[in-house]
Amino acid sequence: MPEYGITPTTGLPDRVRVYEVGARDGLQNEKTLVPTAVKVELVQRLVAAGHTAVETTSFVRPEWVPQLADAAELLDALGPAPDGVRMPVLVPNRRGLDRALAAGVREVAVFASATETFARRNLNRSLDESLAALTEVATAARAEGLAVRGYVSMCFGDPWEGAVDPAVVARVATALHDAGASEISLGDTIGVATPGSVVAVLDALVVPVDAVAVHFHDTYGQALANTLVALQHGVSCVDSAAGGLGGCPYAESATGNLATEDLLWQLHHLGISTGVDLDAMVATSAWMATQLGRPSPSRVVNALAPPALSPAVPTPQES
Amino acid sequence: MPEYGITPTTGLPDRVRVYEVGARDGLQNEKTLVPTAVKVELVQRLVAAGHTAVETTSFVRPEWVPQLADAAELLDALGPAPDGVRMPVLVPNRRGLDRALAAGVREVAVFASATETFARRNLNRSLDESLAALTEVATAARAEGLAVRGYVSMCFGDPWEGAVDPAVVARVATALHDAGASEISLGDTIGVATPGSVVAVLDALVVPVDAVAVHFHDTYGQALANTLVALQHGVSCVDSAAGGLGGCPYAESATGNLATEDLLWQLHHLGISTGVDLDAMVATSAWMATQLGRPSPSRVVNALAPPALSPAVPTPQES
Repeated sequence: MPEYGITPTTGLPDRVRVYEVGARDGLQNEKTLVPTAVKVELVQRLVAAGHTAVETTSFVRPEWVPQLADAAELLDALGPAPDGVRMPVLVPNRRGLDRALAAGVREVAVFASATETFARRNLNRSLDESLAALTEVATAARAEGLAVRGYVSMCFGDPWEGAVDPAVVARVATALHDAGASEISLGDTIGVATPGSVVAVLDALVVPVDAVAVHFHDTYGQALANTLVALQHGVSCVDSAAGGLGGCPYAESATGNLATEDLLWQLHHLGISTGVDLDAMVATSAWMATQLGRPSPSRVVNALAPPALSPAVPTPQES
Repeated sequence: MPEYGITPTTGLPDRVRVYEVGARDGLQNEKTLVPTAVKVELVQRLVAAGHTAVETTSFVRPEWVPQLADAAELLDALGPAPDGVRMPVLVPNRRGLDRALAAGVREVAVFASATETFARRNLNRSLDESLAALTEVATAARAEGLAVRGYVSMCFGDPWEGAVDPAVVARVATALHDAGASEISLGDTIGVATPGSVVAVLDALVVPVDAVAVHFHDTYGQALANTLVALQHGVSCVDSAAGGLGGCPYAESATGNLATEDLLWQLHHLGISTGVDLDAMVATSAWMATQLGRPSPSRVVNALAPPALSPAVPTPQES
């Protein structure tokens, strides 16, 4: 492939932290059960590609997310995170934190909802009750010397409530910040954000923009445009998933994360450094597609990965 | 589906002209030969959805693009364009213009390359020779009272030359404008534009921004982010193809146009009016996917179209 050059544009950061969520948020939404050994290889390949923040798994109740029931075995097989690499684990409550501590984890991620309905459905608590519980877990994690990342779900729309009030997102983000979260990720859990709602939420925030990450799903194809707007408004940490894990290119429930490769393609051509190698990511996601037996929803992976790497892919109509 | 609300953001136009290229640029890149009757229905459905600019076909030599060999029959079956609707036809040369005139067409589109190599490969002429020939065709069309649209191919990258000089794009755009083109579409023929190169080209242009359209392919997932940047820089006409026609979601050659539905989802949620009905477009593209026997690469079509409308789609891994 020829070089198409690097063309920076004004008002964007020089460097972006890419926070890789494929192994946790991605796999959590894949129906095909992935063997622990494949997850180990996935995480190792993500780190080898240059990622310095790889969320590995979650200590939720196994019956809720069977895909992540092997969290302890996975962490044991992975061993300690290499120097300079964060390997956070999602924990829903105190019991999850205890399991994470027993596994020797150095960073946990906690999550809150920006809507009352999702708090009650996902956490079986009111929004304020869930914030109180989360503050307890985060405080306990900080007391043990752990770093804490906070997620806010449904920041830009909720399947039951529709539009979400940016002031509520701001309040939840502040609660996470006050609880000791050093990075707060604004989640578009159902992929309905558009650039206007992204700007509205960012404008409403009280927490410092340096502590903010954005987390877009590509359900309606908006993830990368939303990311660009967030970068224009000072955000410099972006969540993405290798190969858009968690989505399927031709399913009604195609709710995958922004694909890391599509993000890297944009950032690198804008002269924004990430430290992550695009070719290594494409190879990793093409390999992962064969493990899942279906093509990646990432445009870049499909454009660059030799089809021979994806034997399970349906025969294309195009040559 | 609940309403996620409209959230405008500053610095964008109130209204965008969507120029629908699915029937021509889209089908031209589809290997499955589509019967004329299906094309008639496609164009009629596009107009019924509210499109006011539908490029219908091309008078190229049939042996070059067998898919469009039925241009005259298609136009005959369609009859005159309804009031207020543009139905341009692409013409590569004087002979194509004569055939378009014989078919009663009221607008033609002509094309030039922004690179010397593509001009020689696609048109068998030097860049300057092709501009001279195109000026002749455009002048003849204007003399017959026809409107003229001009395309510039390879504006943001060329598979042989790599990066493209924005000054050359500007020169070609000016030549098209001087030749009487009232709308000049900047084509990212191979999908390698990123926001920086989009801004660089728009900044280099001499022609008025009101006469500029952008035409992005989604090969690397950048089309909608590029479109957003173009809107931020004053562009208010965007080319797109129903369902991302011309691309395949899992082929190496997935060089489809920006999907009209993904564009409309963004614009409408930003409070930007287009006059085009999103639901009607989703239904049209789901129907067209069954005609082609494969799923649409549009994220919005796949998220919203009932899978029952797409019996030829592979069984999803996800429920």
